[in-house]
Amino acid sequence: MKPIQVGLLGFGTVGSGVAKVLARNAEEIGRRAGRAIEVKRVAVRNIDKARAAAPLAVTEGLAFGNDMQAVVDDPDINIVCELIGGTTLAKDLVLRAIANGKHVVTANKALLAIHGNEIFAAAQQAGVMVMFEAAVAGGIPIIKALREGLTANRIEWLAGIINGTSNFILTEMRDKGAAFADVLAEAQKLGYAEADPTFDIEGHDAAHKLTILAAIAFGIPMQFDKAYLEGISKLTREDIAYAEELGYRIKLLGIAKRRANGIELRVHPTLIPAKRIIANVDGVMNAVVVQGDAVGQTLYSGRGAGSEPTASAVVADLVDVTRLLTADPEHRVPHLAFQPDRLADLPILPIAEVETCYYLRLQAHDQPGVMADVTRILADAGISIDAMMQKEPAEGEKIVDIVILTHVAIERSVDAAIARIEALETIAGRITKLRLENLDR
Amino acid sequence: MKPIQVGLLGFGTVGSGVAKVLARNAEEIGRRAGRAIEVKRVAVRNIDKARAAAPLAVTEGLAFGNDMQAVVDDPDINIVCELIGGTTLAKDLVLRAIANGKHVVTANKALLAIHGNEIFAAAQQAGVMVMFEAAVAGGIPIIKALREGLTANRIEWLAGIINGTSNFILTEMRDKGAAFADVLAEAQKLGYAEADPTFDIEGHDAAHKLTILAAIAFGIPMQFDKAYLEGISKLTREDIAYAEELGYRIKLLGIAKRRANGIELRVHPTLIPAKRIIANVDGVMNAVVVQGDAVGQTLYSGRGAGSEPTASAVVADLVDVTRLLTADPEHRVPHLAFQPDRLADLPILPIAEVETCYYLRLQAHDQPGVMADVTRILADAGISIDAMMQKEPAEGEKIVDIVILTHVAIERSVDAAIARIEALETIAGRITKLRLENLDR
Repeated sequence: MKPIQVGLLGFGTVGSGVAKVLARNAEEIGRRAGRAIEVKRVAVRNIDKARAAAPLAVTEGLAFGNDMQAVVDDPDINIVCELIGGTTLAKDLVLRAIANGKHVVTANKALLAIHGNEIFAAAQQAGVMVMFEAAVAGGIPIIKALREGLTANRIEWLAGIINGTSNFILTEMRDKGAAFADVLAEAQKLGYAEADPTFDIEGHDAAHKLTILAAIAFGIPMQFDKAYLEGISKLTREDIAYAEELGYRIKLLGIAKRRANGIELRVHPTLIPAKRIIANVDGVMNAVVVQGDAVGQTLYSGRGAGSEPTASAVVADLVDVTRLLTADPEHRVPHLAFQPDRLADLPILPIAEVETCYYLRLQAHDQPGVMADVTRILADAGISIDAMMQKEPAEGEKIVDIVILTHVAIERSVDAAIARIEALETIAGRITKLRLENLDR
Repeated sequence: MKPIQVGLLGFGTVGSGVAKVLARNAEEIGRRAGRAIEVKRVAVRNIDKARAAAPLAVTEGLAFGNDMQAVVDDPDINIVCELIGGTTLAKDLVLRAIANGKHVVTANKALLAIHGNEIFAAAQQAGVMVMFEAAVAGGIPIIKALREGLTANRIEWLAGIINGTSNFILTEMRDKGAAFADVLAEAQKLGYAEADPTFDIEGHDAAHKLTILAAIAFGIPMQFDKAYLEGISKLTREDIAYAEELGYRIKLLGIAKRRANGIELRVHPTLIPAKRIIANVDGVMNAVVVQGDAVGQTLYSGRGAGSEPTASAVVADLVDVTRLLTADPEHRVPHLAFQPDRLADLPILPIAEVETCYYLRLQAHDQPGVMADVTRILADAGISIDAMMQKEPAEGEKIVDIVILTHVAIERSVDAAIARIEALETIAGRITKLRLENLDR
């Protein structure tokens, strides 16, 4: 089957990420989509700059050009990917793509929050899809969760940390007791904040995203102009510290809430109880909590910006459209996500072959030389120690608890070492072995 | 258009929840699905018991019977909902429904983990869908996230708290320093653990769910028999306390990890750093972390069991199938989740009409009567105080910070009260007003 042909408008952070992910995961994506997805053309303002945005292996196969309209008009292109941002040229191009019968994937939250009603009406008329998972919370599939995953529910409210720049600044202010201006300067140095940060820190970006979330949660038109916006630039260290003392964290939340007589739609710094999971979503991470009448609260968190996290959402939309253009509706999503004739033949490893970290608890007679014996056995087995803790024996007891945390090791080596340690005369009884995962990458 | 006709097999906790949610949210669900969804028949073993499982308003319209096969064979039924559990009768009924060309929605993790390969092959052949969002992590749309939301990624690993009973027991053991047996007895009293809790506490249930997650994450057949299982019954208070001392929490995790030579598939108690979000998912809550090569880590949390949370997932699957049977593929999911001609005309409320809690910081001259004045003004405005904190003035200063947290109030009342307080002679400068959300329901 002929690959699905994609036209990319823009090749900046997100566009180049899309090309990279499509290239690197082509095999995996094809197995899921049932068809290859190919970038046929890329339209950019500056071709040299675009070519430099991704490795040669990614860019050398791509047809770069300057003519955006030509991409939108190309009869061979199935899906137009709008990644240039802004609300004027982007709007014209998206509407023209729709008029040409092309499906559109966009990451442009401002465009949708402001012109979404017009764009969706045009798409509905033309029988094409406008997909926008990447427009809110980057790689977190929150649009899909709301549009498809929570359809049983009457949504009561949702609240989200949907601007990474602000969340980074608030996290640093709290952790370091620093002032807003100092942290902002640091964020600018790190590339987490723009030279003109207004858009992020005054809540505009969050309000664009909140407008979209509220529309699909409550089934209302986009009404960005009615959203209430208040940013974080006036927050003081004192307020953050006092909130902390009272058991709260301050986050810039986008909140949409159903009330008897209408909808609350507001972005502002908000105190939330420190024990809530969302209060602990720190740094540039995003998270959205949704309260549904049947499901209760569900929470979605992950990276809300960045090249590949955003590309992850764009490419998921490309796969969604590809599946729809490829298979009969009932075969659209394969039962196991991958096409049934393209499942992998990977063996499940026996537990002895598992590699992880370990927690070992030993009970040892409180006498010299025990530690030396134990550490020697572990070293001989190639198991390195991350931490070790010896508890004082209880009054009158002669047996002490020793706890050892190991670095990553292979389970059969650990089991062999445990057998040797248990055989020591200074060790009493069996060793407790638990596995430990850092979950850090 | 004729409503989609659903046949329910089973009317226990989940089945009655499905009927309740479909009845209560019929209007909302119809606006999303583009068509009404109707329970045509319910087959149960004990009709009287089933009728008692939901309010009269829900059950009186339903056709109850004992003949499960008759439901599966009913030519008017579009979707069969298998909610009886078990792996023998359920398997026969599901395969027969598929052979009859009916779509199937099931919450049965054991059935899919053990017989999924056969069931999916039959469904593929027959051109019907078998949907199973409710089989893993209750109302959290994790199946949809993996099958559709993260399709751009090569999944590297996933790790989940996917058994609420075990998580409740571990949370209580940690919070109360209690022994396993005591907490288990308490969980049984509360209805969080079965009389025979083996299935939950020894990891079988988690392994069924993990088998399903791994299959759709890596595109491999279901291989439940190769999963490694280790439960929580041997965990001691000491291990939980030592882990805590070293900065870790112990959770029963289901872990599926891609390695160069195969897949790790294992359920066991696991130490994880206390600062990770998933380490703070407590009680009966579930959560799954997925590591993808493009998106990085995303986390999904919510209620993993219970009547309506599970029904939320079942009904979402019903909506998915209904959308597919109703509209042209490109109109399957409406842009704003609801059908474009059925958007709601709800006004966005002005900020003055918002109701929330407030944090107020006042700077006051340190003299008698200030607090009395302030609290009187708030009381007059009908604003009740949740907490109040007065900071000592700094050395040589005469101005003190007073922080007040209010209960829920309407913003315009709060603004009016603030104006009155600011007019007091004892108050210096402007009052800082921040909003506070408890996010508790």
